[in-house]
Amino acid sequence: REKRTIQLDAARIDKGGHKHFMSKEIAEQPTVIAQALGHYLSGDGAIALPEPGIDFAGVDRLTMVACGTAYYACLSAKHWFEQIARMPVDVDVASEFRYREPPLPDRTAALFVSQSGETADTLAALRFCQGKAGSILSVVNVPESSIARESDLVLPIHAGVEVGVASTKAYSCQLTVLLILALKAAQDRGVIGPDEFADHVSALRGIPSVMSEALGIADNARRMGEKISQARDVLFLGRGQMFPLALEGALKLKEISYIHAEGYASGELKHGPIALVDQNVPIVVMAPRDRLFDKTVSNMQEVMARKGKVILISDARGIEEAGEGTFGTILMPTVQEVVSPILYAVPAQLLAYYTAIAKGTDVDQPRNLAKSVTVE
Amino acid sequence: REKRTIQLDAARIDKGGHKHFMSKEIAEQPTVIAQALGHYLSGDGAIALPEPGIDFAGVDRLTMVACGTAYYACLSAKHWFEQIARMPVDVDVASEFRYREPPLPDRTAALFVSQSGETADTLAALRFCQGKAGSILSVVNVPESSIARESDLVLPIHAGVEVGVASTKAYSCQLTVLLILALKAAQDRGVIGPDEFADHVSALRGIPSVMSEALGIADNARRMGEKISQARDVLFLGRGQMFPLALEGALKLKEISYIHAEGYASGELKHGPIALVDQNVPIVVMAPRDRLFDKTVSNMQEVMARKGKVILISDARGIEEAGEGTFGTILMPTVQEVVSPILYAVPAQLLAYYTAIAKGTDVDQPRNLAKSVTVE
Repeated sequence: REKRTIQLDAARIDKGGHKHFMSKEIAEQPTVIAQALGHYLSGDGAIALPEPGIDFAGVDRLTMVACGTAYYACLSAKHWFEQIARMPVDVDVASEFRYREPPLPDRTAALFVSQSGETADTLAALRFCQGKAGSILSVVNVPESSIARESDLVLPIHAGVEVGVASTKAYSCQLTVLLILALKAAQDRGVIGPDEFADHVSALRGIPSVMSEALGIADNARRMGEKISQARDVLFLGRGQMFPLALEGALKLKEISYIHAEGYASGELKHGPIALVDQNVPIVVMAPRDRLFDKTVSNMQEVMARKGKVILISDARGIEEAGEGTFGTILMPTVQEVVSPILYAVPAQLLAYYTAIAKGTDVDQPRNLAKSVTVE
Repeated sequence: REKRTIQLDAARIDKGGHKHFMSKEIAEQPTVIAQALGHYLSGDGAIALPEPGIDFAGVDRLTMVACGTAYYACLSAKHWFEQIARMPVDVDVASEFRYREPPLPDRTAALFVSQSGETADTLAALRFCQGKAGSILSVVNVPESSIARESDLVLPIHAGVEVGVASTKAYSCQLTVLLILALKAAQDRGVIGPDEFADHVSALRGIPSVMSEALGIADNARRMGEKISQARDVLFLGRGQMFPLALEGALKLKEISYIHAEGYASGELKHGPIALVDQNVPIVVMAPRDRLFDKTVSNMQEVMARKGKVILISDARGIEEAGEGTFGTILMPTVQEVVSPILYAVPAQLLAYYTAIAKGTDVDQPRNLAKSVTVE
């Protein structure tokens, strides 16, 4: 494996009083998201993209490609583009996309997400799309990176240097920038009214403050993490907007605690994975009190009927309605539905963090993993 | 939960000398696939669909929806439709699709796959598409089912009654019918030459015979299953066409042995899940010697460098090139690349079957699962 030397400003990679870079980077999220918002939202609530910008009126379809955590950010963005901008979206992992060589119909834009901007498979996928897709967009943390250099439009996430191998603040900043881009697409395509647009912008502006509030779950997440650290297997469940968060929660836990966690769409549970459930399997349910809440709770109750230990992550109303009989609950602030995927990154991250702490694994440098995957 | 009484012909649900319905249904695959081929291929190699048929010249995009194993059949079909018919395909699990209410652009056909034809979420997804999609197609085992009745075109898979809760012959018959449909689409869209078409038809006609040969891995699969039965966690890896098979292999194992198995695209391994790998984790690699073989082997070697126990499932050339140093190998017949997903259903099924036998779990009636999920 190639090694690269990267110049880092010592002050910027200090742990700032935290025990690990990961906890520092989790705690930084309100600040860096506020920074990102400042770059993309002007004072009057208009969206300002970097030059040369893009007009989504000329785009019929979006193809998004990424790896790992950035891929899960794309899955969330698919919901936003489809719901808000009524634009069909394909999402694929880069190592599959590049060799699948999928047809790219006219007026397709291709978007690539990578923290480092150097992910080998993502870069190769981008190169496959050059000359085929109408335009090449990228969402990166390193604006000087190869992926950024080869894109028509680069959207930096302004997360600052991320040192922890398990991505945290880069993920929530990716989500923030992708939601802004979906709003821009809705505006360009003329499918969003001024009131709805203003509501979404206001929800975006509220993120730093509710995210600070959400960081207050830390003590509770530590207690739950201690319990999860005893388990061999964990399932994460979510529906709709929360399905990608279930995947991300499971990936974070796998990466740093080495516990076999798996994320599932709640509705798929009955089609196989529920066979795994017994009294030894904690099941983390990500379910704000949204329009799919009752469906998710119904799946959760099937799990509880089979003695699965449910940890319900929801807001006050959700926990009041469905918290009884669970193994544990994590109370989250109530937010507008559209931004809940960004907020629920926090419990996904903190559960993994405290589980790893309880197990004594190396949080910032988990075994077998590298920060940037610059080989295939 | 509602109960239904289904009339079954006693002779047809006899185990026919097998210890379990599942092993009987695995063994039946060459026969039922030959039956399905007989229904869809005429003597001169032309494709004959049931009335009223469909002309894919009027279809720009296909949306496929299903649950569980049938969803994995759709993931394989996506490769076929994209590669052979150059038609973009969206695939989604029904419980996500129906609530996501995705945009369906003009000239989109919607296709629903369900063994029973009564899967509640799939039926609801179909109803969402009525009046929106250009046409509604279904691939079912029960032609009198609700999903069949509400479709514009029904493609029966002719698998016969499937009793085992874990789907086996229905899966391989779904794949067979979906491949035939992709060939029809390629023909209608004028993107396949007569030679290539004839090659694919000849590969299809060869399936019953190579599948009979593949059933000869049983003794080897039993030995591997005994080893897998000692594990707590198993990973299944595959690239491209083999990725859905990795998912299916993991699901089968979960369903009937209750071992936490998970399928991954080989290229995603380095983006997180490789952290799980140590000497206690068997890793089943599905890799015929196709054009992605070297890439998969490279991922496999990373796993072996971390002491993971690799079971390589490949053909003679693949095992000769990469079998050394693995924990075990399963030798499969060599087939044309296009039909390998159908053939590799056999090791996915037999590994799960013999692992469950070694563990002593109830193969035909696994805990917590029902054959048809007729509730949400």
